Amino acid sequence: LDEQHSKQFRKRFLDMHFYEQGQFFLTLNHEQRLQLYQIMAPDEVGDMFDTLEDDQIDMSKILAEMDLKYASDVLNSMYDDNAADFLEHLDKSEVDRYLALMPRADANQLRGLLHYDTQTAGGLMTTDYVVMRQDLNVKEALDLLRKFAHTAETIYYLYVIDDDNDLVGTLSLRELFTHNEKAILSTIMTSNVISVFVDDDQEAVAQVFRDYQFVALPVVDHAHKLMGIVTVDDVIEVIDDEAQDDYSKLAGVDVDESKSTPLKAASSRLPWLITLLFLGMITATLIAHFEDLLSQASILAVFISLITGTAGNAGTQSLAVAVRRLSLTNNKPQHLWGLLLKELVTGLVIGLITGMTIMIVVGIWKHSFVLGAVIGLAMMAAITVANLAGSLIPMLMAKIGFDPAVASGPFISTLSDLTSVLIYFNIASLFMGFFKGM
Amino acid sequence: LDEQHSKQFRKRFLDMHFYEQGQFFLTLNHEQRLQLYQIMAPDEVGDMFDTLEDDQIDMSKILAEMDLKYASDVLNSMYDDNAADFLEHLDKSEVDRYLALMPRADANQLRGLLHYDTQTAGGLMTTDYVVMRQDLNVKEALDLLRKFAHTAETIYYLYVIDDDNDLVGTLSLRELFTHNEKAILSTIMTSNVISVFVDDDQEAVAQVFRDYQFVALPVVDHAHKLMGIVTVDDVIEVIDDEAQDDYSKLAGVDVDESKSTPLKAASSRLPWLITLLFLGMITATLIAHFEDLLSQASILAVFISLITGTAGNAGTQSLAVAVRRLSLTNNKPQHLWGLLLKELVTGLVIGLITGMTIMIVVGIWKHSFVLGAVIGLAMMAAITVANLAGSLIPMLMAKIGFDPAVASGPFISTLSDLTSVLIYFNIASLFMGFFKGM
Repeated sequence: LDEQHSKQFRKRFLDMHFYEQGQFFLTLNHEQRLQLYQIMAPDEVGDMFDTLEDDQIDMSKILAEMDLKYASDVLNSMYDDNAADFLEHLDKSEVDRYLALMPRADANQLRGLLHYDTQTAGGLMTTDYVVMRQDLNVKEALDLLRKFAHTAETIYYLYVIDDDNDLVGTLSLRELFTHNEKAILSTIMTSNVISVFVDDDQEAVAQVFRDYQFVALPVVDHAHKLMGIVTVDDVIEVIDDEAQDDYSKLAGVDVDESKSTPLKAASSRLPWLITLLFLGMITATLIAHFEDLLSQASILAVFISLITGTAGNAGTQSLAVAVRRLSLTNNKPQHLWGLLLKELVTGLVIGLITGMTIMIVVGIWKHSFVLGAVIGLAMMAAITVANLAGSLIPMLMAKIGFDPAVASGPFISTLSDLTSVLIYFNIASLFMGFFKGM
Repeated sequence: LDEQHSKQFRKRFLDMHFYEQGQFFLTLNHEQRLQLYQIMAPDEVGDMFDTLEDDQIDMSKILAEMDLKYASDVLNSMYDDNAADFLEHLDKSEVDRYLALMPRADANQLRGLLHYDTQTAGGLMTTDYVVMRQDLNVKEALDLLRKFAHTAETIYYLYVIDDDNDLVGTLSLRELFTHNEKAILSTIMTSNVISVFVDDDQEAVAQVFRDYQFVALPVVDHAHKLMGIVTVDDVIEVIDDEAQDDYSKLAGVDVDESKSTPLKAASSRLPWLITLLFLGMITATLIAHFEDLLSQASILAVFISLITGTAGNAGTQSLAVAVRRLSLTNNKPQHLWGLLLKELVTGLVIGLITGMTIMIVVGIWKHSFVLGAVIGLAMMAAITVANLAGSLIPMLMAKIGFDPAVASGPFISTLSDLTSVLIYFNIASLFMGFFKGM
């Protein structure tokens, strides 16, 4: 590329939004990327990388194709939460090589962020925030903000500390704007500070953003020292990821397999299916146990899938409601017995109406209301049990510290196949004399 | 309440965050609320209402218990997107009464917002934004921002228009801070403006926020005139609502029934269950058609629920993957045939492995590898068909303009019960001679 072309490219590249630059970068091949590193400065490349996620790009490979110093400068110019997200995926030796070429303070900050679990407030936070002493006045604060404008992830919120470096207040730039230049920060700041702990789960952090409608939130350690801030863009990602996670678990599959081959897709779906297959085998064994009854009254086989299917559907509904309810209370089950009682009544009502419907339909179809009553009764009981199971199992899992969402729809329907078959054949056995030869 | 108490209450109330005020307000009874209106000014109550959602509170009742002028002032002091959300639920006559007491310009702005579908950019946007002419300089812009600081929903982004009122650029307060006071807005603004149309669906709006990591986004009409802005707090709600919606649809139930009675819960779950019950009846009729075969080989009944259950589980997985993939492309199906082929191969691989597993298990259990082969073959075919259905049906629904998420897990498993039974008994019929008397 000659100089003329390089200049044109630079201009067109910089006219794009960072996100668009990132999407463009993802389409480049190795040679084209090398050319780009020639033309663009490390901080320009860093701005672009700030918009890319760690699952979109193999950053180890990308950084390795750069000059070592250039790579280090790119990482250093990124917001440090984003840089840390990429560094998580690198070998320790690689990380050390890049950090060695950074100013020591920056390297230490990044190294600090790498210690936190990625699913916690610490894993989300940036240390590129604005902090000020409480005895400054508004004019001094505004002047300082101007200086921070190039490096901080947000300058719209500033965090006020006392002489012990304890977080004592927050102030928005909007509030600075509406106060006299002489006003002292400690007199105008919000002292009722909402913050999260560095080891709080990311879902709890997202909940605070939802409730308070904040754009940034301070993160403190357990001695209430300010450690960093979380910004809303990272929280949107968390909300998206958690939603996809819940959705995946309900279906018993990782739904994010858009780029995988059929073989990879199959191997990610098979473990659940095979596990449930063996659970289903228990149901088959149960039915085999009643084979005598079946051979004498083959009509009973006609309604197996209707009863197991309907109970499974009801159980899936009840499960989804329970998991959602738990996620609203951060997986801490509340009013356990009250909720179970409520779900029992709901199940009974649903079972009663569904059971009566099928009783009438079967009664008319097979000209036998005794058969209809047996099927209806079995369906009512099967639905009630499936409803209870769909509600109880996620609550129990939460109680013993598991993620309740792991109890998937397929799991509940396979389990309810078992209970439904048990209920169905036991009820039918009572009417044995009636069914013989039907 | 005497004056002393009122003062104390005011102070404690105003020390709370708006969100906490709102949560407190929700716990008050009618008498307590009347006292609160005595103590707090309309704009203070408005700030609090800005944090409440329209599904948390019956605003028609709340406004009716206020003095008419007070109620009108409360609404007028709220951000107009939030006020409009509440007014949506009121009768036209009520709305007119409150708007009649507002300054005409404010009333018209609110009336304008009420025209937009709540699920679109127009339904999300506020008109409380900052707009400036492109020939101002940075100092003039900062002075203007100061004035807007009390009323605008955000002052961190300002929107630049030309003499025709066309939106020509955006500027962040951060950018203003990093430029010389004399610089003219048109020379420093971002002219590559990302905006959404007023009738764009809220999901598309949320996608732009996710991609570009914006905190606010301008909304324009089709002549590119600026109509309003959407802020990130409203988008977080959209993302939450859409996620809950997808989750609900996958389970065939509205999961947000936390406050409803068992009867209400049952009546919201029953329509799907009864509909699927009739679909399940078709499956039962099919099995009845093979009752002859069943009465001669009751062993076949043992594996009905295993085959239908496993195929249903596979179909649910495939459905969830397809719905998620569609939502990433805004429900516009792409590469239809390629995806179906991929899902066919995935289904075949899953079917083959699951089928072989069950063949071996049944062969050992029942000492008959012919029986095992029949069950295995039926399972393989049933899974492949269920997988294809789980993938094809949401894509077809999207193609004809329906929401693909309506094809729920329960629907796919009930449908695959039907196909599985058909496949199973037809394969078994071929081996009729072998099964007789088993």
